[in-house]
Amino acid sequence: MIRKPNILVSNDDGIEAPGLQRLVEELKTFANVYVSAPYTQQSAVGHSITIFYPLRTYEHTKDGEFYGIAVEGTPADAVKIGVLYFFKDVKFDMVVSGINHGANTAINIIYSGTVSAATEGTILKIPSIAVSLTTFDKVDFIEPAKITSDIIKQMWEDDKINLHEGTLLNMNIPNIPAKEIKGVKITKQGKSYWEDGFEVRKDPHGKEYYWLTGKMVYRDDSNEFDVAAVKDNYISITPLHFDLTDYRTFEEIKDWKINL
Amino acid sequence: MIRKPNILVSNDDGIEAPGLQRLVEELKTFANVYVSAPYTQQSAVGHSITIFYPLRTYEHTKDGEFYGIAVEGTPADAVKIGVLYFFKDVKFDMVVSGINHGANTAINIIYSGTVSAATEGTILKIPSIAVSLTTFDKVDFIEPAKITSDIIKQMWEDDKINLHEGTLLNMNIPNIPAKEIKGVKITKQGKSYWEDGFEVRKDPHGKEYYWLTGKMVYRDDSNEFDVAAVKDNYISITPLHFDLTDYRTFEEIKDWKINL
Repeated sequence: MIRKPNILVSNDDGIEAPGLQRLVEELKTFANVYVSAPYTQQSAVGHSITIFYPLRTYEHTKDGEFYGIAVEGTPADAVKIGVLYFFKDVKFDMVVSGINHGANTAINIIYSGTVSAATEGTILKIPSIAVSLTTFDKVDFIEPAKITSDIIKQMWEDDKINLHEGTLLNMNIPNIPAKEIKGVKITKQGKSYWEDGFEVRKDPHGKEYYWLTGKMVYRDDSNEFDVAAVKDNYISITPLHFDLTDYRTFEEIKDWKINL
Repeated sequence: MIRKPNILVSNDDGIEAPGLQRLVEELKTFANVYVSAPYTQQSAVGHSITIFYPLRTYEHTKDGEFYGIAVEGTPADAVKIGVLYFFKDVKFDMVVSGINHGANTAINIIYSGTVSAATEGTILKIPSIAVSLTTFDKVDFIEPAKITSDIIKQMWEDDKINLHEGTLLNMNIPNIPAKEIKGVKITKQGKSYWEDGFEVRKDPHGKEYYWLTGKMVYRDDSNEFDVAAVKDNYISITPLHFDLTDYRTFEEIKDWKINL
């Protein structure tokens, strides 16, 4: 019999987010689950860590029982302190971050707290996966949590979770009924981007303030890219890493002569 | 005669940081310089943007004259609002972020606000460069600013700044007298990492809080890597991009069968 994996669950929407709580319920059907997640909503924090201030944490309870650690910090902080301090006696087999409310595809990946929690797991040398649902609408997350849990269970049983050191998986689930999902595609990060602007407003005292606005410009036609795969009703899984070196440019410029 | 380039300068140490101010002085010797930088210190914010709150900004003056825009937000926010709103009539040739107080090499790159400001410039399709000095000690930044400005001027005059769309340069300067610097090396992001821990303390009311601690584990011997190059007294320039796809793993797992 395959042993139960030890899974740390985190997210960026906060420990009370239904996307996390439904996922925890489903993962508990086959895994030992530990939760260390931000206390509050932390979207678009990128891969931040808290270094100039101390972290405060709270034991979060549910129905009178210990549920997990709520961290006044970022998703990366929550994973770090969960693995290195609160659950330091646990040998984690996986970090799962999510389920995020909103897609994390293409350029959005670099702003994503959900992905950053999984990145932090990978930095700590634990196989990690970020999971997002492609909608901001209010949803119950029941089907996406079942699907996610099934996929993670298969990956565990088929011994697919141990990738190269430094590689994480970024999964995006289209927000459609489960029976309409066509399958799972392994994809590349898309090239779609935001055309940003700022909306200028005045506060009640006449001072200006600025809201970021933007619309996504689609450049990914083939469903070998994450953005296109989810639009085409596939679950997208993209292998990511945090070696940001642009090797093509490195080869082109490595013999540059720069005088001092 | 070569025309003057238009350069936006930002950073993560804030608009009053000497690293930024010395750099601005030097760049002004050959360029039109515009400043849009965070109001306060923003280190280790990663690539965050502010989406749930509006941004406030202030016109920062120096000796009674307009100096730049101080943004109550992250480095990425400052670059976005500088380029898209405050200086929207300027056609920028470059975004320069820095000079940061402290190295941004190896794994530190993914936590770096300095790099994120340059990344944001690249996202806005402007050639961008992040600059860091490898020390946290109090220094005057005069020599590093001169060196940085000389290198950027050469790159401008030799038409080296237009790399592939999505590529930025990450420069690290060793904190030694200029005459001891051996030259410039084009490098790859190193594999060195932090061994982290948390120090537990008690506040005056008896409640626990946690400080992140860590020591760098060096794994980069060859000075083809950023960490090693600066240790060997070279200026390191690494081409980075924000396509996080791990193509090697993609090729290995693209035919995975996952059942729904």
